[in-house]
Amino acid sequence: MAEGITKRSEDYSRWYTDIVMKAELADYTPVKGCMVIRPYGFAIWENIKQILDGMIKETGHSNAYFPLFIPESLMKKEAEHVEGFAPECAVVTHGGGKKLEENLYVRPTSETIMYSIFSRWVRSWRDLPLLINQWANVVRWEMRTRLFIRTTEFLWQEGHTAHATHEESKEETLKMLGVYKTFSTEYMAIPVFDGIKSDAEKFAGALKTYAIEGMMQDKKALQAGTSHDLGQNFSKAFDIKFQSKKGTLDYVWQTSWGVSTRLIGALVMAHSDDQGLILPPKIAPIQVVLIPIYRDPEMRSKVIRAVKEIEREMAAVARIRLDDREQYTPGWKFNEWELKGVPIRIEIGPRDLERQQVVLVRRDNGEKISVSRNLLTSRVEELLDEVQHGIYNKALKFRDENTVEIDSYDEFKKRMEDSVFAKSHWCRNPECEKKIKDETKATIRVIEFDAEKEKGKCIICGKDSNGRAIFAKAY
Amino acid sequence: MAEGITKRSEDYSRWYTDIVMKAELADYTPVKGCMVIRPYGFAIWENIKQILDGMIKETGHSNAYFPLFIPESLMKKEAEHVEGFAPECAVVTHGGGKKLEENLYVRPTSETIMYSIFSRWVRSWRDLPLLINQWANVVRWEMRTRLFIRTTEFLWQEGHTAHATHEESKEETLKMLGVYKTFSTEYMAIPVFDGIKSDAEKFAGALKTYAIEGMMQDKKALQAGTSHDLGQNFSKAFDIKFQSKKGTLDYVWQTSWGVSTRLIGALVMAHSDDQGLILPPKIAPIQVVLIPIYRDPEMRSKVIRAVKEIEREMAAVARIRLDDREQYTPGWKFNEWELKGVPIRIEIGPRDLERQQVVLVRRDNGEKISVSRNLLTSRVEELLDEVQHGIYNKALKFRDENTVEIDSYDEFKKRMEDSVFAKSHWCRNPECEKKIKDETKATIRVIEFDAEKEKGKCIICGKDSNGRAIFAKAY
Repeated sequence: MAEGITKRSEDYSRWYTDIVMKAELADYTPVKGCMVIRPYGFAIWENIKQILDGMIKETGHSNAYFPLFIPESLMKKEAEHVEGFAPECAVVTHGGGKKLEENLYVRPTSETIMYSIFSRWVRSWRDLPLLINQWANVVRWEMRTRLFIRTTEFLWQEGHTAHATHEESKEETLKMLGVYKTFSTEYMAIPVFDGIKSDAEKFAGALKTYAIEGMMQDKKALQAGTSHDLGQNFSKAFDIKFQSKKGTLDYVWQTSWGVSTRLIGALVMAHSDDQGLILPPKIAPIQVVLIPIYRDPEMRSKVIRAVKEIEREMAAVARIRLDDREQYTPGWKFNEWELKGVPIRIEIGPRDLERQQVVLVRRDNGEKISVSRNLLTSRVEELLDEVQHGIYNKALKFRDENTVEIDSYDEFKKRMEDSVFAKSHWCRNPECEKKIKDETKATIRVIEFDAEKEKGKCIICGKDSNGRAIFAKAY
Repeated sequence: MAEGITKRSEDYSRWYTDIVMKAELADYTPVKGCMVIRPYGFAIWENIKQILDGMIKETGHSNAYFPLFIPESLMKKEAEHVEGFAPECAVVTHGGGKKLEENLYVRPTSETIMYSIFSRWVRSWRDLPLLINQWANVVRWEMRTRLFIRTTEFLWQEGHTAHATHEESKEETLKMLGVYKTFSTEYMAIPVFDGIKSDAEKFAGALKTYAIEGMMQDKKALQAGTSHDLGQNFSKAFDIKFQSKKGTLDYVWQTSWGVSTRLIGALVMAHSDDQGLILPPKIAPIQVVLIPIYRDPEMRSKVIRAVKEIEREMAAVARIRLDDREQYTPGWKFNEWELKGVPIRIEIGPRDLERQQVVLVRRDNGEKISVSRNLLTSRVEELLDEVQHGIYNKALKFRDENTVEIDSYDEFKKRMEDSVFAKSHWCRNPECEKKIKDETKATIRVIEFDAEKEKGKCIICGKDSNGRAIFAKAY
């Protein structure tokens, strides 16, 4: 166990906070519920952002920037939306030393401000589809906060699109859910279930909400991304109409979708251990750390010369950091970079130089590998790939071992005490869903797309079920 | 003159707004003083951000993210600072449906919130220098706004550093001013004067403020970046102390520096003409637009095949856009991409195919160049460079022609009616500075670093002057 990190088995919640703080991902601030994302945590966010931004642009979307403030009158235009969001908003009542004529809400999400402007931009079918994305900060007043997972202010991207037909907007909704799933599995190394939310869990103002859900190491679910089919709810509220090819004046069909800095919390909770962070190489700010080992000055100059050569050679294939600080021992550095989750450590001492080899150590499983010097770069490239897959497969195995089909409510309650992903039949009645939530704290995370293949009986009321839903306790 | 664009000579201010709106850089919103940055404008910001972010990282800084909100008590800790900024703040008084116990200011700049946290991070000389940068939105309540140039909310980067000695912090202040100057001249193609601000114009809470100032086409100055030597003003207010190497407990020495989305306004005002935007290639979202010209379907397929080949070939050397939309004529497209400031247009028709050549047209000076097909890619690379320099040199010539040494206040007043950069002697007395401002609207933009080479007499009071200051009307 690393110094100052509570064991997962002792207190999962403290373990999480210890890692976030000790690895210097984030810190508390004098502002209630708001955190500071420290440079190492922000470097993770920059990697997430760069990769996801590329995927969002490849699918045809452009970035833009809309105002932080939403006038109260706009916020109130879509009835369900204001009911869901207004109670958790921060409200600006004064500006420039005076009381404002109209209160301004700090955006909790940007549907209302964006769509009030979309209504001027969209005139004809030629203006469609309108495919916009925004990287921004949003504010939702939270009572119980947790670093990254739930904070009053957070960073996110929010995509907002408008289409000529519902067919097209549904396709877009599912396409972006697919982008999130690919990103989560291939980059974050977090396997996810994808599907549709129950009405009780959908976005305020959406027709349908789709989500991806990952399993954390305490077997709780974390919603890692959502994509909403907004139908024409907002286009009717904001009067976004277009002249169709046939000459009719129609309301557009809309989608919105987003992921946030809570993904960093998901990374920590899904993969890390009692020594600290474990980061998938594709997301890690530093992929390889080089640690020179020597005892006397003469040895030092030889070893340093060798590691600098390796640093230069490997810069093209990996994000590399040479830790040649003299005030710390190699052992101290091993702990430090384990805590920070660097996927591969390279140790080089005088004996390695003699033998023309180096020692690689994998962060994810502790394996030590001796590699001949001339094969180093290609071996590191392979190994980064192996670590990426190793982390994913471990998470997948854990999730699959803790995802079970449960057909009796007694068993459901018993297994849910320790938390589990329960695939159970449900009659689609919100009352049965509510009973489960009240009694076990488990909610429906998603109903998978292929759920309707199997019919059954609701575990609460025994009535016909059109397919299993995935229930779990969630962050 | 392009359709709907007011001529510069008729109304410079309307010309500017017309270009910003017609080129779809930005738009007004229902939120007073706030704009939306549209995709094309945001793509310019993304280029600015990417280049500058690289320069900021190369000089050793790391990105982080601090809260949007600043508790009133923190805001009030540095006397000059709160006096300067509080009157222009937006204030959150309610959150989560309740009145807050303490008001929260929406950050107008982040010194106070950041430094309240720095005080926990800095303990020893080993923690220094602390080199942080943040890309964020900030809010300053503005009465008279102008798209990009002055808006209530804007995007910017703000660097904040802490050092062990004043020597080091002064060096940092000037280093970052140098980064801004390099960025402005080499990428934005805007020549700037750099130097120190007078006390009347310095940042609220700074010891000294340095700035770069560009000349717009109406001969007014635009401050394009500032760098502040904060001394120990904030470290004393926020109790940021460190154990020095000698064992003493000292206050850190600090700097802050920033540039914002107003740079996009500067780009428009410095280079554009009555046809629309002119963008320097290094900043342009699209560097080369390809326009196929044909009359019948048979010709079309040949021409399209040829331009697609060119598109593929040139993708490696330039940001290229093929405009093969069929609903628009080539003439319409020429106007459209001129309006949007694309540096090079390539026209390809059947006759060009026969002759194995293409026609390049420069946006900055309208020059047409025939190039043989097999030399195209290398010629485009060269030409992008020539355009970049051409735009810079034109702006430099204009600025130098309109920067004059003026030694009498009568001449000063006369020249300042039409606006000019006046290099005039000033006794360093704020009263003389104020008289000039009151009577001519001209302010001191900077005192150049080598100003003290020349002694003279103040143009107002006739007393001794330690060197000329640059006066101008400013945005």
